[in-house]
Amino acid sequence: MHASILDTIKFDDKGLVPVIAQDHSNKQVLMMAWMNREAVEATLNEKRAVYYSRSRQSLWRKGESSGNIQKLLDIRLDCDGDTLLLSVEQVGGVACHTGRANCFYRALNEQGWYDADDVLVDPETLYSKKPAQE
Amino acid sequence: MHASILDTIKFDDKGLVPVIAQDHSNKQVLMMAWMNREAVEATLNEKRAVYYSRSRQSLWRKGESSGNIQKLLDIRLDCDGDTLLLSVEQVGGVACHTGRANCFYRALNEQGWYDADDVLVDPETLYSKKPAQE
Repeated sequence: MHASILDTIKFDDKGLVPVIAQDHSNKQVLMMAWMNREAVEATLNEKRAVYYSRSRQSLWRKGESSGNIQKLLDIRLDCDGDTLLLSVEQVGGVACHTGRANCFYRALNEQGWYDADDVLVDPETLYSKKPAQE
Repeated sequence: MHASILDTIKFDDKGLVPVIAQDHSNKQVLMMAWMNREAVEATLNEKRAVYYSRSRQSLWRKGESSGNIQKLLDIRLDCDGDTLLLSVEQVGGVACHTGRANCFYRALNEQGWYDADDVLVDPETLYSKKPAQE
């Protein structure tokens, strides 16, 4: 890989760049996560989303415990060079650790935030080996 | 507005939350920007996207110079409570200060990043009054 591909990306003061994952088939926004330089390189090399877990401080191969990997179909960089957009195939149809299709399931009404989307898979089933939150 | 609506959002150590704007009609991801607590409140009250400009350190009413405002149709909060997703009507059909429909116009090929999307409006026309980058 040309170093210039990584050099063009503007990582923040923590060495991270925000990454949006979008489902290529129905265009729903699945999640937002972070990558460091190593994670971007791994994502491009492995053609699957590899994020950087800020809580675990290590690479996080999305789907490593659930099997619900995100196959990389396209990657875009924004005008400022500081945000990435992935077009992915979400294996298993579930991106969120709560068992929902995507992470943006909380909508707003007069009373406040409420869960607007259905749980498709029981999280305990999703993480049958390792029920920890990704 | 109930304070709990804002209190549920997890702002980062700089008091900011990343916000994704998605076009409600064609589902394209338009841009990623940031909001502080005041910007979220203004967005909800005014029913249009009001971001926080980190470079200008002030509220940024998207479209204030170009006229291309983003009307708020829906807002979602993610599972971790630290990212917002807006569904918007992008007035003028151009979200990017470069005159493109959205900010994610740089695609990747063997040679590196290249501009994959067309400029729809000359930026000088877009910012006829104030040609500064938003």
